[in-house]
Amino acid sequence: MRQAGRALPEYRRIRERHDLLAITHQPELCAEVTLQPLRRLGVDAAILFADIMTPLIAIGLDVRIVEHAGPVLEQPVRTEADLARLRPLEPDQDVPFVLETIRLVRQQLSPESALIGFAGAPFTLASYLVEGRASRTFEQTKRLMYSRPDLWDRLMSRLADVVATYLAAQARAGAQVLQLFDSWVGCLSPADYCRHVQPYSRGIFQSLQAHDVPTIHFGTDTGWLLAPMAEAGGSTIGVDWRVPLDAAWAAIGPERGIQGNLDPLTLLGPWPAVEEAARRVLDQAGGRPGHIFNLGHGLHPETPLDNLERLVELVHEIEPVRP
Amino acid sequence: MRQAGRALPEYRRIRERHDLLAITHQPELCAEVTLQPLRRLGVDAAILFADIMTPLIAIGLDVRIVEHAGPVLEQPVRTEADLARLRPLEPDQDVPFVLETIRLVRQQLSPESALIGFAGAPFTLASYLVEGRASRTFEQTKRLMYSRPDLWDRLMSRLADVVATYLAAQARAGAQVLQLFDSWVGCLSPADYCRHVQPYSRGIFQSLQAHDVPTIHFGTDTGWLLAPMAEAGGSTIGVDWRVPLDAAWAAIGPERGIQGNLDPLTLLGPWPAVEEAARRVLDQAGGRPGHIFNLGHGLHPETPLDNLERLVELVHEIEPVRP
Repeated sequence: MRQAGRALPEYRRIRERHDLLAITHQPELCAEVTLQPLRRLGVDAAILFADIMTPLIAIGLDVRIVEHAGPVLEQPVRTEADLARLRPLEPDQDVPFVLETIRLVRQQLSPESALIGFAGAPFTLASYLVEGRASRTFEQTKRLMYSRPDLWDRLMSRLADVVATYLAAQARAGAQVLQLFDSWVGCLSPADYCRHVQPYSRGIFQSLQAHDVPTIHFGTDTGWLLAPMAEAGGSTIGVDWRVPLDAAWAAIGPERGIQGNLDPLTLLGPWPAVEEAARRVLDQAGGRPGHIFNLGHGLHPETPLDNLERLVELVHEIEPVRP
Repeated sequence: MRQAGRALPEYRRIRERHDLLAITHQPELCAEVTLQPLRRLGVDAAILFADIMTPLIAIGLDVRIVEHAGPVLEQPVRTEADLARLRPLEPDQDVPFVLETIRLVRQQLSPESALIGFAGAPFTLASYLVEGRASRTFEQTKRLMYSRPDLWDRLMSRLADVVATYLAAQARAGAQVLQLFDSWVGCLSPADYCRHVQPYSRGIFQSLQAHDVPTIHFGTDTGWLLAPMAEAGGSTIGVDWRVPLDAAWAAIGPERGIQGNLDPLTLLGPWPAVEEAARRVLDQAGGRPGHIFNLGHGLHPETPLDNLERLVELVHEIEPVRP
């Protein structure tokens, strides 16, 4: 899961001297941070270290990443006029540091490990832009979506363009898997998802087909959204702990892979409780080769390292990596 | 839905002079506030005006209700020693104002309208006690649940006792339906729900059988928890907008009623969008007599009154009340 590094002392030492965005702007440092979880824990893939707001900051939006609060915009995007602040992304000019990080990571990565590139999905990005910050209710976002479907369409279209361009550039730079994080999409009803979100996410996955890389489509709280999310795209669907993996797999169909879904807060408990919960995830996946064991969402910074190390060992023991 | 009054000018006028808890302590005023949504909107039932923390404040916990933030405890409940702060509830001494409110409402309520009493469920109450405030991640709650299942069991048992006693007293005072709000239970995996929550909620519903009143068991984000929640109890299961009603009904079985599930934020949009979304809810309920049309969660204070009035009319027109 993204942000796995947060629990590592070697990451925290770097963060004492550099803020998150500063790291992303220094490709050598950023490649190092990207590789830390793999080196320390022996996980099977590295995920690009970046913020989901990175491409939006790169096209000029004034976003701060606030400790414990996440992205904050002093001027939210809510009106016709605000749309002008969203220009197309030109990856070579706008995010050269991301592409260079990917190239550096690939040089250092052994052939049996994959580098996962990623982007926030249009809905999740829109929610930060419209709310101006993280939200529990997504009130402003839904207000715009229900009241101004025309404006919503233009906002989502522009975001989808930025995301598709950003992910394609990551694939060209060497990312071997692309993950689309629609972290907050679970606040919507299936009907609202299908009308106001699915077309834009589907467009991104369609445009990525030309690059012939596997894709992961992730969300939280996506109980009854799994089937329409799978329709939008993604060779693998990422789910949180709220959905049993067997039920999730039934919803998305056997031809998709599935990623998940240990509750990351389980890892704050004692090892026997972690082991039991991890074995349950593996049982529900039924040993099928399309399962990517993962947490259901981001890692808590206070997660004991020992639990993480033992978890990786346990999963490798029960569900060996298949080529 | 509880807090329907928040959108009414007559409620806001009262709140200018009295804070929330002060209203609950004045039975005549509290009965008035309880009846306001029914008088203004013509809804079919009144729901007791109270806070979910009311019974816990009544047994001596130091809880403040903070505007826009909800319940806040300066001293969260997290240790063995903290459990001593949770004594049994003695309704006649501890919450006489609630019981008197119920009696006053019943005197003023016409026979075809019902008064719904309610309580927070043990998990949702525990989450406020352990976190000390509203949470997005329920980190402290889960930490306690995973690390100290013994302590968690004692905390949940005490809360279940308080809740069962509180609801039984409401039934004796005249509440004709009892609703258990497990608003935040959707943060749990089904396995964690079954082990750490279901036994306590089930105990409450079992103890209420003696009172022979219908019960409603409500939660949000309860996609894959619906079946185990129904097993815990409730003659009707309340769901939010994330689950299509037909799918929810399939999960809980045809012998239960179902309540829900319009996204309350829909009501911030224009009427045609509200109407379309409300008709979808009614379609998914399929005209079955066990459907109680409702919002999927609390009403936004800025909801236009006009949308609310038209919504009640629309629902009455399409799905008339059956005796």
